[in-house]
Amino acid sequence: MKKYLVQPEPGNPALTESVDGVDHTNTAINTRVPVERPLTLFLNSQEIVTVMTIGDFPEDLALGFLLNQNMLTHEDLVTGIEHEPDIDVVVVRTERETDYEEKLSKKTRTSGCAQGTAFGDVMEKFESVALPDTTLKTSWLYALSKNINTTPSLYLEAGAIHGCVLCERDEPLVYMEDVGRHNAVDKIAGYMYRKGLSVDEKILYTTGRLTSEMVIKAVQMEIPILISRSGFTAWGVELARQANLTLIGRMKGKRFIALSGTHRIEYDADPDTIPAELSHLQRKASTKRNAD
Amino acid sequence: MKKYLVQPEPGNPALTESVDGVDHTNTAINTRVPVERPLTLFLNSQEIVTVMTIGDFPEDLALGFLLNQNMLTHEDLVTGIEHEPDIDVVVVRTERETDYEEKLSKKTRTSGCAQGTAFGDVMEKFESVALPDTTLKTSWLYALSKNINTTPSLYLEAGAIHGCVLCERDEPLVYMEDVGRHNAVDKIAGYMYRKGLSVDEKILYTTGRLTSEMVIKAVQMEIPILISRSGFTAWGVELARQANLTLIGRMKGKRFIALSGTHRIEYDADPDTIPAELSHLQRKASTKRNAD
Repeated sequence: MKKYLVQPEPGNPALTESVDGVDHTNTAINTRVPVERPLTLFLNSQEIVTVMTIGDFPEDLALGFLLNQNMLTHEDLVTGIEHEPDIDVVVVRTERETDYEEKLSKKTRTSGCAQGTAFGDVMEKFESVALPDTTLKTSWLYALSKNINTTPSLYLEAGAIHGCVLCERDEPLVYMEDVGRHNAVDKIAGYMYRKGLSVDEKILYTTGRLTSEMVIKAVQMEIPILISRSGFTAWGVELARQANLTLIGRMKGKRFIALSGTHRIEYDADPDTIPAELSHLQRKASTKRNAD
Repeated sequence: MKKYLVQPEPGNPALTESVDGVDHTNTAINTRVPVERPLTLFLNSQEIVTVMTIGDFPEDLALGFLLNQNMLTHEDLVTGIEHEPDIDVVVVRTERETDYEEKLSKKTRTSGCAQGTAFGDVMEKFESVALPDTTLKTSWLYALSKNINTTPSLYLEAGAIHGCVLCERDEPLVYMEDVGRHNAVDKIAGYMYRKGLSVDEKILYTTGRLTSEMVIKAVQMEIPILISRSGFTAWGVELARQANLTLIGRMKGKRFIALSGTHRIEYDADPDTIPAELSHLQRKASTKRNAD
C-alpha cells in the first residue's frame, strides 16, 4: 500500500487543547478538544474572508479557498504565499491583478459582500467542467472506508472536526482535517495545486454532508467521485447529476447509497463479507477520566 | 407537558424531495433528502448575505441572522419584513437606517466583505452580556434529550440536517431544523424576537458542534445554557468560560460532559436509570427499498 502524502497529526500539541470539566456523574474529567482560530485571507491587497480553522496548512487553505471560489484560476501565476502567524493572516500574491479583484472592486459598491457575488462566479466554471468516465469498484470503497476510519486522527482524539481525503483507486493519499466546514477540502485543493498532483483516477472522501457547496467544490477540482459517511441535500444531488458526478453517501460498514453517476460503479465486492464498524471507530470522541 | 410552539414538519412536501438511487447491493432504492435553496437577505436597501436553507420561516431566519450578527439591535424598530419567494429574497425594513448600514458603507472600501467586519461587531456585544445564574437539573437534561430525540423530525425522515431547540426547564418549546450550519439557531432568535418570548429560564439545545460561532450566538441571545449531542472546540470552551455560559456536549443516553459554567448544574437524576438511546433514533437517516 502507498503511504499517505499527508495524514492527520493527532499528537501535534498545536492542534488540540487539554481542558478540564465534569462528566454525567459529576466526576472531574480531562479531555482534548480541537483548536479553532481565525485566519484572514488576502489576494494581493484585497481582503477576501476570515475563516475559522485548526491552523495547519494555512498556505494550502488560502490557495484552495481562492481556487475553489474561482477567485484564482490555474492561469494566474502565483508569485508568493506569505503566512503571518502573529496576525493570523495569509497573503496570496499573483503576477498581475486577477480578474476577481477587478470584479470585486466593481461589485462591492452595489452588494457590499464578497459572499453574495462569489457564488455566481463559482457556477460559471461548474457548467464547463466535463468529468472523466472513470470506474469505481465497490472493493475500493470498502478498502478506503476501512483504511480512513482506522487511521489515527484528530477526530478520534478530540472529536468535533471534519475530515476530507484525496484517494486514488483504493488508496488514501492526502487526509486533511479542520473544524471549518469546507476548509478540509480547500486544503486538499491547495495542496494538489502546490504539488502539481494530477486529478486522474482520484476520489474525494468526506465526513461532511453532501450539500451543494461540497458538490460544487468536487466539480471545481475536476474529481469525478465524491463519497461521504453523511447524507445528501436535494440540491447537492441535482448539481451532481448535472455535472455527471458520482455521489455516494451514508457509507458505513457494508452500506452505502448512490444517488448520481451510478454508471461508474462496478460491484466487485460481496457486501456480506464486510464487517460492521467497530464501535470505538464510529466517529465519537474519547473522554479520559482524571487519574485522581 | 407543554406543547411545542414550533415543531418540525417531516410530512411537509416542500421541505424534502424524493430521489431514486441504488444501494450497496445494486438494488434500486428511493429515499427522501432535505431541500436546500439559496435565500438572499437584505437590510433595507443593503444586500447582506446569501445563505443556503431548507426555506421554512424565512422571515425568522432573516431577523435572527441580523440580530445574531449585531446588524440589527433590539433598539431598531422593524417596520416590515417582505419575503419574495419567486426571487428567494427577504427584505427587513427598519424605521431609520441602522448603524450597521453606515458602518458597512465605510468598511467596504477597505475590506470588501461584510463577513470580515461583522466579527468585530459581534464581539462588542458579547463582552457586555451578563448571563443569569439559573439552575440546570440533570433530570431536565435527560427529559429534554429523550423528548427531542423522539420528536418526529426532518432529520429522522431525511438526514443531513441540523436541529436547534429552545427549551424552558424540562420542556422543548421551539424546534427548528435547517441544512445551513447556523440557520436553525438564527430562526429561533428571529422567532423569539417576533413573538416577544422572554429568555428567562431558557436552555438552547443543538445537534451541531459547540464552536465559537455557536457559543457567540447563544450569548447574543442571552441564553445561559447551551447543550449539544456533538463535541467542542477549544475556542468555543474559552468563550463560554469568558461569558459564564454553561456548556454541555457529547450528550447521548446517560452520558454528557460539561466544560464551562458547571456551577449551574444540579445532579438530581441517577444516570444509571437512563436507558441507552434506541439505535433507530441515533440520528441516522432512513432508506426505503423500492416496492419493486
